[in-house]
Amino acid sequence: MSNPRPLARGNSRVKEARKLISRRSERSERRLFLADGPKAVEGALGAGVVVELFATPAAAEQYADVVAAFPVTLVDDSAMESLSDSVSPAGVVAVCRFLDDEPVLDPRTAPLIAICADVRDPGNAGTVIRCADAAGASGVVLAGNSVDPYNPKAVRASVGSLFHLPIGQERDAATAVQRARTAGYTVLAADGGGDVDLYDADELLARPTAWLFGNEAWGLPPELRALADHVVSIPIFGRAESLNLSTAAALCLYASARVQRG
Amino acid sequence: MSNPRPLARGNSRVKEARKLISRRSERSERRLFLADGPKAVEGALGAGVVVELFATPAAAEQYADVVAAFPVTLVDDSAMESLSDSVSPAGVVAVCRFLDDEPVLDPRTAPLIAICADVRDPGNAGTVIRCADAAGASGVVLAGNSVDPYNPKAVRASVGSLFHLPIGQERDAATAVQRARTAGYTVLAADGGGDVDLYDADELLARPTAWLFGNEAWGLPPELRALADHVVSIPIFGRAESLNLSTAAALCLYASARVQRG
Repeated sequence: MSNPRPLARGNSRVKEARKLISRRSERSERRLFLADGPKAVEGALGAGVVVELFATPAAAEQYADVVAAFPVTLVDDSAMESLSDSVSPAGVVAVCRFLDDEPVLDPRTAPLIAICADVRDPGNAGTVIRCADAAGASGVVLAGNSVDPYNPKAVRASVGSLFHLPIGQERDAATAVQRARTAGYTVLAADGGGDVDLYDADELLARPTAWLFGNEAWGLPPELRALADHVVSIPIFGRAESLNLSTAAALCLYASARVQRG
Repeated sequence: MSNPRPLARGNSRVKEARKLISRRSERSERRLFLADGPKAVEGALGAGVVVELFATPAAAEQYADVVAAFPVTLVDDSAMESLSDSVSPAGVVAVCRFLDDEPVLDPRTAPLIAICADVRDPGNAGTVIRCADAAGASGVVLAGNSVDPYNPKAVRASVGSLFHLPIGQERDAATAVQRARTAGYTVLAADGGGDVDLYDADELLARPTAWLFGNEAWGLPPELRALADHVVSIPIFGRAESLNLSTAAALCLYASARVQRG
């Protein structure tokens, strides 16, 4: 087997790949993104979207079972650091094609979906995608002025779930909500001060549901809230003012899953 | 009213306070920590633990209602930046005494507590504290090799909840678990591959419960898991391998709250 010298930081392929980390415009123009670390790379390979696979010699050996399915381009440690925004890079990064798999809006076959409006933190977006996957939801729509799901921090926080279920993007959040309603979903907005208590709503939760989650700091704008069929609140039993976005989403999605699958 | 010149970055009081951000040893020796931002400062003032309150002139005006309860030391923007590890400092920081309020282990009056073993990420620790507060738990113990709750990122992620319920620290996680059992709690370890499904355990959840959560990466060590009365798993309905620590904790704590308060 040939054993070529690992590519250095200044190599043009490394430099082209690196641009995909920080620039959303670069990602959306080239329709490419990076999957960083063995879990994400495994998911990307499983989804068949890898176009280039970089690894350090050490990582290629350590994750031999993961990278076996695709030709590996070896890079040195400095080049790998430039390809990862992680504090401690695992040593494997894949350049991936956009997934382009829209959530199917069919209440009979896909009775649980999530719409996030204006989620700004990529870690939150990735965690909500992971929770939606765990709860058995059929898709997530990142709507309005949301972070893109191909942001490296979002990819990492999703821990592979980005590759498990379709993630849609829709610039106009109201359109995303209306589409779900038209398709036959009951749209439940998760927000404080709602008219329904999450733990007193089993009948409602049994219906095909599109959960609507708002921004991590300011929640849902009134005009979007008004488009939902019901506003559902998670009860606060102690003195906390609220929950953060990803824990609230987990509680709502699992409450639905529990009832729908019970 | 006198209007003294705001203190600069090099002022000795500012420098002494700044040391509390990065060094755990500094915090534990002086038994002081920083509360950063209006929510945290409000919580600290409510808990009566503030010993010094810094604000920029602009923030002192903007958060006049928050800071009214304590004499404000004005600092300039550069000094404030040095007192905050936040990307965009809100402009108010309080030096606070340690809370020194141990969770009460009484199953009758405090039927829900949480024990975190080896939680390493301060954001996770703070988020678990916030969830425990929201779910009406009576206390959280950070056990084993856990991050300290006075880490600035933990304080910020708790969004004031650090001041709402007692947070204990116990270097030996097994001791923390044994204490809870001796006091009469049923100890439920949250872990994959458990013998009990979270959504099929209402009878169990009705008992006074100490939830035991493990490290974000490697979960619970076998010897600690073995000390629990039951190992409870959150069902995964999709293809995700697991949930992250704070969403898992939210689901467990709220499952208990729903049953205990139902």
